[in-house]
Amino acid sequence: MTRERKGLVVVNTGNGKGKTTAALGVLFRAWGRGMRVRVFQFLKHTGSRFGESRAAEKLDIPWSALGDGFTWLSKDMDRTRALAREQWERCREALLADDHDVIVLDEFTYPLHYGWIPVDEVLDTLRARPHMLHVIITGRNAPEGLIAFADLVTEMREVKHPFREQGIKAQPGLEY
Amino acid sequence: MTRERKGLVVVNTGNGKGKTTAALGVLFRAWGRGMRVRVFQFLKHTGSRFGESRAAEKLDIPWSALGDGFTWLSKDMDRTRALAREQWERCREALLADDHDVIVLDEFTYPLHYGWIPVDEVLDTLRARPHMLHVIITGRNAPEGLIAFADLVTEMREVKHPFREQGIKAQPGLEY
Repeated sequence: MTRERKGLVVVNTGNGKGKTTAALGVLFRAWGRGMRVRVFQFLKHTGSRFGESRAAEKLDIPWSALGDGFTWLSKDMDRTRALAREQWERCREALLADDHDVIVLDEFTYPLHYGWIPVDEVLDTLRARPHMLHVIITGRNAPEGLIAFADLVTEMREVKHPFREQGIKAQPGLEY
Repeated sequence: MTRERKGLVVVNTGNGKGKTTAALGVLFRAWGRGMRVRVFQFLKHTGSRFGESRAAEKLDIPWSALGDGFTWLSKDMDRTRALAREQWERCREALLADDHDVIVLDEFTYPLHYGWIPVDEVLDTLRARPHMLHVIITGRNAPEGLIAFADLVTEMREVKHPFREQGIKAQPGLEY
């Protein structure tokens, strides 16, 4: 058995909680080791002030969110799509530069799932990235091609959820 | 539907990756909001220098590990059990004091699963904790009673794992 050291492509998918949160945990851990980390968020509103972006700011972790808060009710889908493409262009540049140890592409599965960004284009970029660069991709409905390519895939499966079952509000700090 | 605000008991269980990591992500997020967070680790070697404990040190997050690196090959099970009990006594004190917003009990399911700490004793303590305190418990084989009591339970299910499938070494920063 070879005991190779190389950058991994990690996918956190499934309908349960913890996909983005586990990516943040890796960030925390890698930052603790002095590694160069960076986050790109898709879809979420540019300028949203969640706990994670506040923490990143305090720790000087580069954090780029570009989106218009896409939901199923979004009216201007062309704009949502264009922002996702634009964000992907920035990611691609960062993935190919040799400036980081861990890059998180948060909620990136959605533009792939909807066909706004071709999966093949993404796999080509991942193949061309520096050998030791870890990439973490989060979101539901990770496309088959990405799962086949990834080194480590975890499905977060919802066993019990307080919103639906008890009518509990999302809690700051815990969930955003 | 009531929209209550209260501290949640969160359980990350299952055989996949991301249980501890997602707890670290909550820590990162909550710390970003200026919340008072604290971690208790079970079983892991006291004084282990993982990326997460280094990050916690830099951020001044209280981090208590007490254990002797329990594995299936451990020779002195009495000692392992005694350390787990001792760590639980410390946790109980912290859970009942009104000093924190989020407390992580990492790998806490194991001493419960092995019967070293009675589940009922833990549930009584959780019931008696301050109303707004979030508690995150990680580890495989979460006992039924804990799952029934918890507000949010996620199973991390392994879809693809690089160690077994490709013979890749655990990567610092990413996994520890």
